[in-house]
Amino acid sequence: MWSYEAPLRDMQFVLEHWLQAPDTWRRSPAFEALDLPLALQVLEEAARFSQGVLAPLNSHGDRQGCRWQAGQVSTPDGFVEAYRAYIDGGWPALACTEAQGGQGLPQLLDAALQEMLYASNHAWAMYTGIAHGAYLCLKTHAAPWLQARYLPDIVSGQALPTMCLTESQAGSDVGLLRCRAEPQADGSYRLSGSKLFISGGEHDLTANILHLVLARLPDAPPGSRGISLFLVPKQLDDGQANGVHCDGIEHKMGIKGSATCSLVFDAAQGWLIGEANRGLAAMFVMMNSARLHVGLQGLGHAEAAWQNARQYAAERLQMRAPSRPEEVVAQAADPIRYHPAMRRVLLELRTTSEGMRAIGYWAAHLLDQAEHDQDASAAQLAPLLTPIIKAFFTEQGFRQASNALQVFGGYGYVTEFAIEQTLRDSRIAMIYEGSNEIQANDLLLRKVLGDDGRAFGLLLAELRDEAGQGAEYVECAGFSGALYSLCDALASVVSAIRERSHEDSEYPYRAAPDFLQLCGVALLAFAWARAARVSRALPEDDPLRAAKLQSAGFFFDYLPSRLAQHLGAIDGARAALAFI
Amino acid sequence: MWSYEAPLRDMQFVLEHWLQAPDTWRRSPAFEALDLPLALQVLEEAARFSQGVLAPLNSHGDRQGCRWQAGQVSTPDGFVEAYRAYIDGGWPALACTEAQGGQGLPQLLDAALQEMLYASNHAWAMYTGIAHGAYLCLKTHAAPWLQARYLPDIVSGQALPTMCLTESQAGSDVGLLRCRAEPQADGSYRLSGSKLFISGGEHDLTANILHLVLARLPDAPPGSRGISLFLVPKQLDDGQANGVHCDGIEHKMGIKGSATCSLVFDAAQGWLIGEANRGLAAMFVMMNSARLHVGLQGLGHAEAAWQNARQYAAERLQMRAPSRPEEVVAQAADPIRYHPAMRRVLLELRTTSEGMRAIGYWAAHLLDQAEHDQDASAAQLAPLLTPIIKAFFTEQGFRQASNALQVFGGYGYVTEFAIEQTLRDSRIAMIYEGSNEIQANDLLLRKVLGDDGRAFGLLLAELRDEAGQGAEYVECAGFSGALYSLCDALASVVSAIRERSHEDSEYPYRAAPDFLQLCGVALLAFAWARAARVSRALPEDDPLRAAKLQSAGFFFDYLPSRLAQHLGAIDGARAALAFI
Repeated sequence: MWSYEAPLRDMQFVLEHWLQAPDTWRRSPAFEALDLPLALQVLEEAARFSQGVLAPLNSHGDRQGCRWQAGQVSTPDGFVEAYRAYIDGGWPALACTEAQGGQGLPQLLDAALQEMLYASNHAWAMYTGIAHGAYLCLKTHAAPWLQARYLPDIVSGQALPTMCLTESQAGSDVGLLRCRAEPQADGSYRLSGSKLFISGGEHDLTANILHLVLARLPDAPPGSRGISLFLVPKQLDDGQANGVHCDGIEHKMGIKGSATCSLVFDAAQGWLIGEANRGLAAMFVMMNSARLHVGLQGLGHAEAAWQNARQYAAERLQMRAPSRPEEVVAQAADPIRYHPAMRRVLLELRTTSEGMRAIGYWAAHLLDQAEHDQDASAAQLAPLLTPIIKAFFTEQGFRQASNALQVFGGYGYVTEFAIEQTLRDSRIAMIYEGSNEIQANDLLLRKVLGDDGRAFGLLLAELRDEAGQGAEYVECAGFSGALYSLCDALASVVSAIRERSHEDSEYPYRAAPDFLQLCGVALLAFAWARAARVSRALPEDDPLRAAKLQSAGFFFDYLPSRLAQHLGAIDGARAALAFI
Repeated sequence: MWSYEAPLRDMQFVLEHWLQAPDTWRRSPAFEALDLPLALQVLEEAARFSQGVLAPLNSHGDRQGCRWQAGQVSTPDGFVEAYRAYIDGGWPALACTEAQGGQGLPQLLDAALQEMLYASNHAWAMYTGIAHGAYLCLKTHAAPWLQARYLPDIVSGQALPTMCLTESQAGSDVGLLRCRAEPQADGSYRLSGSKLFISGGEHDLTANILHLVLARLPDAPPGSRGISLFLVPKQLDDGQANGVHCDGIEHKMGIKGSATCSLVFDAAQGWLIGEANRGLAAMFVMMNSARLHVGLQGLGHAEAAWQNARQYAAERLQMRAPSRPEEVVAQAADPIRYHPAMRRVLLELRTTSEGMRAIGYWAAHLLDQAEHDQDASAAQLAPLLTPIIKAFFTEQGFRQASNALQVFGGYGYVTEFAIEQTLRDSRIAMIYEGSNEIQANDLLLRKVLGDDGRAFGLLLAELRDEAGQGAEYVECAGFSGALYSLCDALASVVSAIRERSHEDSEYPYRAAPDFLQLCGVALLAFAWARAARVSRALPEDDPLRAAKLQSAGFFFDYLPSRLAQHLGAIDGARAALAFI
């Protein structure tokens, strides 16, 4: 049966060795009180909650789903109690500043928490997933009285926020949205219009729900420059219900325990956040955090897929394998984990999930450094990594879930083992929070070509620095060489794309999807080169040390074909694409 | 909303031009009465049935699913009536010989029928999908009295057969099965044991169900050499129910309208098919047909995915595209089919489904030639193509369904548009009827290395012959050159694998999955080189002619990256794979 155990050992490895985060914390005024033992204690508590409370509700939540009746939404049995335990544990406050009643812990630890929440119960974690982004948005852009009124509710978890962007005609293209906001004499606004696909737009976890709504003022210019952001609470302070009504929930492929709502705003009272017509900018502060979170969903699914496939492959006996470990005696049938096709899939599952963990946590660590340590390089790198993490991680989450399902054979297709749920749940992350195609354009057009490659140059410098450090150790020299070559290939490909784009301005759009995938593979190469090097800090007889070297070896043996694929596709995209 | 229209125009193109099947039929004693107009008439009827009867039941069947109560299974509303229309139309008899009451039409036309059935309603077609294989198996191996008793029921559709292989401990490894058969004085046998994952093991479509059951005789040797095949009817001729009981159905990720049954055989009466202990050989005759059918499921899903994505991409307006067809005036937002990322996906959807159609039908045509025209080359090629078609097509069916879902964005994830159903339904085909990993080993180990490359040499000769023919036309010369190079690469890679396998006998197992994918891409290259050439037979102003050249161009522009990927991975697999 499906199960989940938080990978605390690997999380520690990333924090302690891969990132050497405690050293950074020690130098940072914001986190100087934080050390590794305290961080691990937080993660152990998060693991207890995820494994003990959320994971047991995961399959059940999928089967029962949400129920809508007359505008009210009931979440699956157990979700309300789990949420109560979540706020009792103080989890919403984890990465909020102490001035706001938060615990003042880094986003890095929040990233580990999010990974566990999504891996153990993606549907449940949809309700809480937007809270930190909304906190950042209000803290940065809302008027002081609005912050004072609503931030404490978010930090305590008494109210849950939503992001209301999509309308039926406005998905990727928010510029098409029609929802209207009429200014009132008291400084508030009345919002009217319909919103679609609003996660947690209505539920029974909290009495109040804080909708962050994009809408147009009466005199707004058309398109995306005429959009403003509003806070519209479900409950008004006079005890009245606001004019927000949930007129239905979607039946979906997965995350069935998450209520995906249609909301109708009917002269609902709200307050402007930030400046008029600058709603996208105000919402933008949520983006890096929200997209990183979606990437962590991909990591969570890949990790859950890996754990469950590993366990099944160890137990299931089918056919003799062509070879087996020396110490194992041949039986009529071997555990399928000895079969070459399964070994390959299992190694891919492990290297992908562990590699993504290092990169995902690195991005969170960079966000901390950018926010608290005024680290200019971190502030440039984090937005560059964001679209790669969002799109590459989510595609890998889906791919690895499918790989894991294949390990289970026919048992993978039946609901009883729930690995098929991992596959279904994982698929949405490639779509929402900016589809993966949008991410690819954001990466290549804006983040790489758009700044003349400055941020990308910083990234290459990081990779080259790692290659240089690894070259000093005999067991890492091969990885270093491959990483150097990869950096050269990345630099060339960016030059070639820029060059070509002068005469064929559409080319970067055609090349973007594979360029993003290429960058994803390159980040995994970086992750494994560093993991191999820093694993030297582990005791020689620690099995994790051997496993890290083994994974790095697998990754760099099998890496060239993936590079060839994406480099070839970027080259192939020089050919014009027909309109069909 | 999800819809399906049988691609009759492209089917005709494949039959008439790509295969030039009418010429073959004219020369074949078995099909000399068949010509293109008659064949097209059959396909039009099949299209009417698939579009008019099956497609409208597809989403509903998924939502309602099958219901099990006290051993009885009810299929979704409408399935029984659809089955009655199917037998009234004489469809079960299509490719059965006239001597058996069949229509004596080629498997080629049956392949087109199957594609339509699977594309329009995979779950429903699971009930009928095994019938032709069972027909072949009985016709080849059963005693004359058994044939006389049961073949007419299969040909008329009065009874539906099943294949009972899997047991809980015996999936890919049938050698582990335990079901027992005790010989009786009257020449029959009593079967006892449990079978799992039996598609159509119980249902309400026919009064009788004919189970083809693998079991062990009391004195059978262990493993796969001790397995015999039996026919075990649900109803005995004395009107009594046989000792077969359905004790449950699976809840699955997809094909929910197909009853996947647990069957308990309790001293059920049955009769031996073929020789004792030679059950796998007797079942083997079903294999090529059954695996081709599963491949056609992949084709059907890819086709349905392509059609639905094309329609949605034409209607959905989001953002301005960087360019659009000259004759189109820019609006605030363009149809998403103009966006480069969408054009690329749509072209991949079209070239993959149309290319697979040519190859899948070619395999069926080869089966006809092997059976009826004693064509030795066809008899060698068909079994070589079978594992490629089974594994490559089903993986593409899943991949293209996922691509199509992405085109729909958030709407793709909700059940209302049912493209998510295509994704869920398609996933099983990578698993059953020999998992795709099993197919890869079958291809490389048995079909290529196992016969010293003779069949593979025939395939390369076919591809080279096509390259030679295409070289004569200026618009095809580039495709020919690419196809020649591809043949050289394929020949080299097989030599290299054989060479290396002498010193590393596990290497072919590690290389097998990518070798199969490489062969799949090579077959698509063959399909498109030929399609471009033979499209010259179409009138110059026929849009299909331009579309075929356009698709071939896209395919060969984007081909190199896929070749590089698989060639690189085959090379990468030289590295040993750790046991984890």
